[in-house]
Amino acid sequence: MTPNTPDKPAVVLLSGGLDSATTLAIARADGCAPYALSFDYGQRHRFELEAARAVAAHLGVVEHRTAAIDLRAFGGSALTADIDVPKDRDESQMSAGIPVTYVPARNTIFLAYALAWAEVLGSVDIYIGVNAVDYSGYPDCRPAFIEAFEAMANLATRAGVEGAARLTVHTPLIDLPKIDIIRRGLDLGVDYGLTHSCYDPADDGAPCTRCDSCRLRIAAFDKLGTTDPLLIKHHV
Amino acid sequence: MTPNTPDKPAVVLLSGGLDSATTLAIARADGCAPYALSFDYGQRHRFELEAARAVAAHLGVVEHRTAAIDLRAFGGSALTADIDVPKDRDESQMSAGIPVTYVPARNTIFLAYALAWAEVLGSVDIYIGVNAVDYSGYPDCRPAFIEAFEAMANLATRAGVEGAARLTVHTPLIDLPKIDIIRRGLDLGVDYGLTHSCYDPADDGAPCTRCDSCRLRIAAFDKLGTTDPLLIKHHV
Repeated sequence: MTPNTPDKPAVVLLSGGLDSATTLAIARADGCAPYALSFDYGQRHRFELEAARAVAAHLGVVEHRTAAIDLRAFGGSALTADIDVPKDRDESQMSAGIPVTYVPARNTIFLAYALAWAEVLGSVDIYIGVNAVDYSGYPDCRPAFIEAFEAMANLATRAGVEGAARLTVHTPLIDLPKIDIIRRGLDLGVDYGLTHSCYDPADDGAPCTRCDSCRLRIAAFDKLGTTDPLLIKHHV
Repeated sequence: MTPNTPDKPAVVLLSGGLDSATTLAIARADGCAPYALSFDYGQRHRFELEAARAVAAHLGVVEHRTAAIDLRAFGGSALTADIDVPKDRDESQMSAGIPVTYVPARNTIFLAYALAWAEVLGSVDIYIGVNAVDYSGYPDCRPAFIEAFEAMANLATRAGVEGAARLTVHTPLIDLPKIDIIRRGLDLGVDYGLTHSCYDPADDGAPCTRCDSCRLRIAAFDKLGTTDPLLIKHHV
């Protein structure tokens, strides 16, 4: 993609996973100067934050900040509490209802922080790698939620009062199947061996290969006729 | 007010100021079982959090949590950064534009945390003491912002997906002049000597009497023909 507004600042939410790494690459391809924002929210494993740092360094950002927030205080998710991560589920099981890995109001909180940083930077562009195809069970990954957040954000800030440029929440992956996300990222030079997606990694960070996130990812690389570089890296 | 739904859980944002103390008393009068939520966001002074604890104990809550968040990371406000607090301004000066004490996206972040806790508690009621009369310069104190947040919140959570009861953001003070807020609180037995509102207190917590917040508060007690109990407590 040809940059049409070179160097406009954009806040990019970066978890260190496959989707957010692709989103960062797309923000750069859109001509944005990316400010990457990660969260230390009491994840059960730290590989995610290490992956975010590696991806930010690999793709290039103006600045990368990690905000510490305590979602564990509110309880209730396999990603932050002591609940078993479901394994070996097929796609119909994955898409049935809201998964136990759902964190209450997580994207609302993440986007609220992104909005604060965007306002300070004078940025009107926020990128988030939500996907409504593979994670249809998450209420805060749906287009209707993103549109409502954007409407709210445009009333929440100085921009809304002072009539400045309208803030946009960009969701370049929202309608893409995983295979198309990976294809796009490979085109943009993303090294997926640096990313981390597993809900239940081994002590050395190796993906479990059996949680929903691993299964979706491995299946997509398979369909592309290649192997997930993360499996090669970890010899699994 | 007669409780019509006794003991329904409600999340009440509690800063320890006059407005939030009154809001907590109103939530109780509405028949709610209040869960008070405060934020340690790098305030320049700690008296606010001490006041929140004292008010929660005085009015009675089911639980009081203080979430640590780092808004200083994003900079840009007299309440969290090293910017002078304006003094001795009259009401026309106070209402001109967005004050330097504005914290980017603060109410969005606070309400996002309240939403997370509400979802975990199974609550569909959030109370926030925003006021569009005295703080007309804050974009995130306006009714349009609150309505947009509520619409977003109802798409952000399990409730929105599963068709449960609609979440409401209650703003009982939004249209009230300060004098009416205080009158309501006094009727409900609020001890305003426990609250804290000053933007620039002395080392012992005494209010400066000259910042916008002090001036509005003192003037309102004067109009009611009484003295702010905080002035009496601190002998100022």
